[in-house]
This record gives sequence, structure tokens and C-alpha cells, in this order.
Amino acid sequence: MALLFMSEWDSADEWTRMLRDHIPDLDVRVSPDVGDPAEIDVVLAWKPPAGAITSLPNLKLIQSLGMGVDHLFVHPDLPEGVPVARLVDPHMAMQMSEYALLWALHHHRRIEEYAWQQIEKKWKQLRVRDTRKTTVGVMGLGVLGGDAARKFAAVGFRTIGWSRSAKDIDGVTSFTGADGLLPFLGETQILVNLLPLTEETEGILDARAFAALPEDAFVINLARGAHVVEDDLLAAVDAGHLAGAALDVFRDEPPPPEHRFWSHPKIRMTPHIAGLTHAETGAAQVAENIQRVRAGKPPKNEVEPARGY
Amino acid sequence: MALLFMSEWDSADEWTRMLRDHIPDLDVRVSPDVGDPAEIDVVLAWKPPAGAITSLPNLKLIQSLGMGVDHLFVHPDLPEGVPVARLVDPHMAMQMSEYALLWALHHHRRIEEYAWQQIEKKWKQLRVRDTRKTTVGVMGLGVLGGDAARKFAAVGFRTIGWSRSAKDIDGVTSFTGADGLLPFLGETQILVNLLPLTEETEGILDARAFAALPEDAFVINLARGAHVVEDDLLAAVDAGHLAGAALDVFRDEPPPPEHRFWSHPKIRMTPHIAGLTHAETGAAQVAENIQRVRAGKPPKNEVEPARGY
Repeated sequence: MALLFMSEWDSADEWTRMLRDHIPDLDVRVSPDVGDPAEIDVVLAWKPPAGAITSLPNLKLIQSLGMGVDHLFVHPDLPEGVPVARLVDPHMAMQMSEYALLWALHHHRRIEEYAWQQIEKKWKQLRVRDTRKTTVGVMGLGVLGGDAARKFAAVGFRTIGWSRSAKDIDGVTSFTGADGLLPFLGETQILVNLLPLTEETEGILDARAFAALPEDAFVINLARGAHVVEDDLLAAVDAGHLAGAALDVFRDEPPPPEHRFWSHPKIRMTPHIAGLTHAETGAAQVAENIQRVRAGKPPKNEVEPARGY
Repeated sequence: MALLFMSEWDSADEWTRMLRDHIPDLDVRVSPDVGDPAEIDVVLAWKPPAGAITSLPNLKLIQSLGMGVDHLFVHPDLPEGVPVARLVDPHMAMQMSEYALLWALHHHRRIEEYAWQQIEKKWKQLRVRDTRKTTVGVMGLGVLGGDAARKFAAVGFRTIGWSRSAKDIDGVTSFTGADGLLPFLGETQILVNLLPLTEETEGILDARAFAALPEDAFVINLARGAHVVEDDLLAAVDAGHLAGAALDVFRDEPPPPEHRFWSHPKIRMTPHIAGLTHAETGAAQVAENIQRVRAGKPPKNEVEPARGY
């Protein structure tokens, strides 16, 4: 029995060390050095290349190195019947909420405008919007979106959420399903996207969605680049309808140097850092899943392939 | 009976309108048009000039337009025996906490460095500090500091506080008095100053205090400029000991154009906007105090002149 580690983004050494804190004799192979493919029972992966997981005859678990599993389902050749699990790292929810709060407050308190004032040595108090009358709309109310929504409400924002199925979170008005989307967007002044990426949510933030947002709304995307139709976002910002956006994820990562986001004065970019999975906090969860499948039990946080998350 | 409004910073029209929602026949005089000084029983003031309050023989209340009252006590000629009250605006605590959270997260999540990366079209993930192992130290644990400390703890930071007398806030380790100051600073990686300005706290953030902070600490001052010895702060930042500072208040407001803060790459400035008093939220409280003193009762939120807050 051996674990196959497949990621160009994460440290195999760090994960191996942390996993061995839980399973001291764990046999770890680092792709592409698979050894005997019949020995691999667990794959721990982030964005594996097409075909990489198909030829493992005794595979019992495909464990994502992140919350998202779209990077796995993007290939139609995943072996059938092998459970796929995602990482549900509580530290990641904390990080995501921090990032969302940070940019929401940055926009709400007009920090970009004050940065320009400082450059011009200008001292002028700008009107403050009332937080209790400013609506933050969180898309996706699972582990990540639920945590963010609770924190926005605690800070004092009027907070609403949108999800596939109805969610009950204290102090958060919830909108549901396709019918609820436009009404939700119509009330949202600061949009926080934390949806999983599925066939249904790909491109959900398009011209129609941006037009539904009120004038001067601000968009924070920390889920997946493919949720956003990037040209539609640029058009809505350039038309002056949206105030701007803070983006952590992109259709192509990194975006090509000629991408307009890089030099757009109303787009703030970060390199997919809103929620980084840490071996330290995620390892306990991966180790437990390894032990569960080796004992013939289903893994925790298993994904429904039909639903895609 | 008439109220005398004295502020070059607040709108007399807005305050008059809002106060008349509570006391429809309120007689409001706007300084310097006092009319008959014997008719003035209430002064509503922000930074009144020296001597402006002395010659009002029937004064019953000096009401500050802000949380702070140092702008009143700065003149030694305040009439004795007239109660001084400060505004305790819950909306202001919310605003102050927002501002503190915003800059703490901005520093914690390395947004300044990412802004430079965007300008250079560079895509590089920087190491994230663990929030639970990052200590925010809040100075002052009254209405403002207490709210901030609770919100920092809710977001996930390790949160400690320092105040004159011991305070019991869930999840917040409290340090007390002069003996507790250096131990408190020694653990504080992100310092949030929300102290009242008194003789004891003037210049409290000096070279000795900055030296006590750990390497790479970040300073957020949203209380009063006079809490900080500005040359000592610059020296600590320039020496590389401190990572930087976000400052909303200054010794002189606005700082003179030649002040080094304006163009310092590690100092972020805003023009005293962390907590703006709004007539809308403050008027109910001022109206209640007017009615109380006119009915012979003491005002709410009365200040102890000897303590200075």
C-alpha cells in the first residue's frame, strides 16, 4: 500500500513529514516516480494531468489537496467507483473569510481613494457608508461561505446569501436556486463568490449577473476563475456600473501578461492565495481518510460526482 | 434655554435637523452667533477655541461631539462644576473596529506586497502567517477597544489587551497598568491603539514602547496623534524593526506637507476617518442628555475631569 503525491504546487516533503506524524510507516511516492502502480491505494492530488490516475488498478481513494475538486473532474477519465474526497480545512475557511472581509472593508472604507489622497498629500474626509445599510451577498453557503457570512454579520454588515439549497444561518437572509439568483444580486452591494465550480456555476458571473447588481457594487472572487466571464466583468467596470473587483482566481493562472486585469486601476489581483491549504492543518484529515479507506470505510468529505462538489 | 453649536468639522444644519426630530422646538445657536449668553444652557462642541465656553453663566452641560474629550480639556478654562459628557456612539465602535480589522488583515495578508506584484505583473504566492498564532494587542479596552478585541478574537487572531484597570473579555488575555505595558507589547505583533488621550497616555507610544514590540510588528493608531512620538515611530520603521504603520490620527491634522509620513512607503495615512460621529446615530443620545440636564438630572456618559475620560 502506498500513497501517490501529485502536485506541482504543494511541497511533497512537507506533506510526507506531516502525514508520517499520523502514519509513521506511510509509503509515499512522488509523481512521476510511481513505482509499481498496483501498490498505489491512495492518490493525494492537486491538478493532476489528464490520464495520470487511470492506470492504478488498486486505487481506493482520490484525495484532493484542496477544498475544490473541479481540478479532478476536469478530466473525464477519473476511474469509476473510486471515492473522491475534498479537504475541509477549518483554517482554510478562516483564511477565506479574512480575505473576503479585508477586501469588503477596503472597498467599504474607501481605502483606495485614500491611498491616492496620500500620494497627493491631500486631507479630505470622504463620506462613510453606513455598514448596517450596506449589503454583503455571499454566493455559496457551505463550509467556506457559511463562515464568511457569519463573520460579515458579526462585523455589522447586512448579510445575505445564495445557495443551491436553502441554508439557515443566524442573521443571514438566504436566497435559493436559479429563481433566487437575480433577486439576490439585486440587493447585493458587495458580492463575495465562494461557490464550488460545477457545470451549473461555470460562468455564473456574466453580463446578466453584473447588470443585476446595483450601481457601484464591488465583486470579490475567491472561488474559481471560471465562475467569472472576465470580459463581462471588465465591461461592467469600464461602463462605470461596478465600482471594481478584488480577484484571487482567474481563467488562466497566472493570467497572460497582456490580460487587462494586470493594469486595470479598479481591479486588484492576488495570486490565488485567499485560502492556501497547509499540510500542518490538512494532514490530520488526509491521514484519517487513508486509515478509513484502508479499513474498508468510506472517506470523510466524499464528493458526489454527479453534483461535482 | 438654547443650545450652542461649536464645530468647524460638523454640519450645524444636519445636527439641528436631527436634534429637532427629538426636541422639535430646540433653540440652536451656531457659534459665533451666540445671542444672549445667559440663554445658553447646553454647549455641543468639537475642538472649541480657548475661552469660548467661559462666559456662559447658565451652562448646564458641555456635550462633546465625539467619543474623546481631550479637545475640551486642552483648555484650562473650562467652567468648574458644569458636567462634561462624551458621545458613546455604538456605530462609532463598529466603524473603529472595521478600520482596525481592515488594516490588521491588510498587513497580515501582505496586500501591500501583492499590490507591488500586480504592478510588476508578477505571480508569486507569499507565505501566509497563521492567524491563530498571530497576536493582536489592543490598547484600551473600553467601549471601542472592547468591541475591537471581541471582533479580532472572532476572526481568529490570538487577541490580548492592555488597559488601566483589569477587564474581563471572553477570549482576550488582559494586561493591566504600567507594570503590564512592556509584557503586553512584547507579545503584540499587530498593535491597535484605542486609548483615551490623557496626561498618562500622551506619548505612550515612544521609542521604548516600539523597542518592546517584536521584530516586524505593525502599528495601527486610530485614537489620537499625541499618543505617538512620531519621530520615534519613523526611527523604528526606518531601522527595519517595525514592518510599518496605518495612521488615522496625527500630532497636527493635517500633518504639514513636509511631514515624512506623507511619502513614507511603509506608512499608510487616512484623514481621521476611522470613526466619524454621525448626527443620525449620535443625535438621540445628545437629545436625551439635553432633556436630562433640563430636568435637573446628571447627563449620561459624564466624564470624570480628574481622570480625563
